[in-house]
Amino acid sequence: MSTFFNSCYKDLVPYTPGEQPQGRTYIKLNTNESPFPPSPAVIEAVNGEEAKLLRLYSDPTLGPLKKALAERYDVSPENVYVCNGSDEAINFGFMAWGEDGIRFADITYGFYSVIAGLHHVRTEVMPLAEDFSIRKEDYLNAGCMVVIANPNAPTGKVISLAEIEEICASNKDHVVLIDEAYVDFGGETAIPLTKKYPNLVVAQTFSKSRSLAGARVGYAIGNEALINDLETIKYSTNPYNVNRISMAAAVAAVKSRDYYRKNCDIIMENRAYTTEALRKLGFTVIDSKSNFVFAMHPEKDGGELYRELKENGILVRHFDSERICQYNRITIGTKEQMETLIETVSRLI
Amino acid sequence: MSTFFNSCYKDLVPYTPGEQPQGRTYIKLNTNESPFPPSPAVIEAVNGEEAKLLRLYSDPTLGPLKKALAERYDVSPENVYVCNGSDEAINFGFMAWGEDGIRFADITYGFYSVIAGLHHVRTEVMPLAEDFSIRKEDYLNAGCMVVIANPNAPTGKVISLAEIEEICASNKDHVVLIDEAYVDFGGETAIPLTKKYPNLVVAQTFSKSRSLAGARVGYAIGNEALINDLETIKYSTNPYNVNRISMAAAVAAVKSRDYYRKNCDIIMENRAYTTEALRKLGFTVIDSKSNFVFAMHPEKDGGELYRELKENGILVRHFDSERICQYNRITIGTKEQMETLIETVSRLI
Repeated sequence: MSTFFNSCYKDLVPYTPGEQPQGRTYIKLNTNESPFPPSPAVIEAVNGEEAKLLRLYSDPTLGPLKKALAERYDVSPENVYVCNGSDEAINFGFMAWGEDGIRFADITYGFYSVIAGLHHVRTEVMPLAEDFSIRKEDYLNAGCMVVIANPNAPTGKVISLAEIEEICASNKDHVVLIDEAYVDFGGETAIPLTKKYPNLVVAQTFSKSRSLAGARVGYAIGNEALINDLETIKYSTNPYNVNRISMAAAVAAVKSRDYYRKNCDIIMENRAYTTEALRKLGFTVIDSKSNFVFAMHPEKDGGELYRELKENGILVRHFDSERICQYNRITIGTKEQMETLIETVSRLI
Repeated sequence: MSTFFNSCYKDLVPYTPGEQPQGRTYIKLNTNESPFPPSPAVIEAVNGEEAKLLRLYSDPTLGPLKKALAERYDVSPENVYVCNGSDEAINFGFMAWGEDGIRFADITYGFYSVIAGLHHVRTEVMPLAEDFSIRKEDYLNAGCMVVIANPNAPTGKVISLAEIEEICASNKDHVVLIDEAYVDFGGETAIPLTKKYPNLVVAQTFSKSRSLAGARVGYAIGNEALINDLETIKYSTNPYNVNRISMAAAVAAVKSRDYYRKNCDIIMENRAYTTEALRKLGFTVIDSKSNFVFAMHPEKDGGELYRELKENGILVRHFDSERICQYNRITIGTKEQMETLIETVSRLI
């Protein structure tokens, strides 16, 4: 930190992303990427004419992608905000709607508290239930913005749409942001509810089910006025937030629905296999609706297992925070990768 | 704006980017893009193996690009910050170092005041001299952060490195940010001075001379402590700020130095042609060291000329603010484009 650094940021604790080994020699089950490449249509879009057009700025309105997403989710383009990864929508959303504070779970996506800290937004951290369920009652009449990851990370647990409706209805004066990064692996999206609740925004990403983590594209869907709030902040920081190639890739990805649906189905099958195999080895594995499982062994320290797996060429994600330090979050990869994981784990415990 | 919008942002006046007609039927001389495509090596990098790797997150450290830029500018990778367009470095820089306010010119890149407004940073706006020169004295002992675009936009005028040194030396307690988006068209970079002045940061971009506006890549170079400040804010908002394909493209661009040097030389030749031809038609044209010229005709309203050029298929940039509303900023394109411009202008005046 320099001596010039703004005192209001001196206590910032930045987010620590999962390891991204660039040598790519690990079996990488630590950042919830897809084991499958982007669809052939996406590869074609990336390798198409856009490369030569890179001399021109990208379309700041991101019109073609808004249109594709609007058709896909049965909303209007005016209900869609497109961003440089869904982190951007969360960041701008906290700026836009966090004036009275933000309420979220103690165990959830770690970035929420980081972003709140950056903007000096008051946070209300609600402990999950003993079994890591989100307790709906904790989010009724909150008196501030509510953020819920559904499915939640790193647990993979879901909250029902009926519960989300109750939360929206009881917080009419504040925005409810549902972060659906992992919704395509068995969750149910709240997007249709955005037509009924003008205080509901749903964030999704191309990074997980659509195999485009490296392209950095996310989106938020909600009432037009809320989308305009995000646009106002975008045009005050970085109007050309998504580059040309990534927009072309994302448009192609939205249209490759069958390809990605099939991939998600395979991942869900591999998740069932992994869950069962880990349980047979004595692990506690939370029922997951996402592309990862969260697991702990009663006789094996979570940090130790993480380190030993790494030594054996397998990266998983371990979190140091007290309630979950015995667990590891394991991304679901190909069947072969999961078999290697199970074989390795069985040797280590 | 929604009823939920944070009251601290209610007065935001977002930036208005230049028009980006996606039909591409205009001669587009309004946003200072290069008329030349990216280098063959860049096209190859975009069309290479990265597309299939898009399923994986990009490298948050952006190591290979930092290394390439460090070699190019004779600094260490630790002195380089890489961002999603240089707007990001300016945005984060204002957050990091604007605590005591920010001083910049009345006529300069319009985004400075927008970003300052977003972060509620106090601004000190210094009028340029009558001839649109930056008055060095205005930036000595400022008592706050100083931002200077060099060459300045939309004037194209430069301030000397000797003057920048004086400004840095007299502001030891505050950061001096030199925005060199247009430096490759005849300006002189202050990067070597970053070794002498720990309060100096230089921002550059791939959007102009390197034909990559649509890839969204910029960078800042300065003392390691200053770069760490930017990294701290990045890891608190969007750790994966630059996507895979754009990083690969940018690495290839840094290595295509001869290709881009030749393009810049052609643009400088076309600038000389355009300047002379406009002056022959009675225009006042400011001597420019950038890839645009700033011109006004004593007998033709600036806004009217802008609109008539647009009707004739040529987009230039017109600003409404009082001191410069008689001017238009005209990007330098190919010789053929500039000949069409001159021919059209001569009919319109």
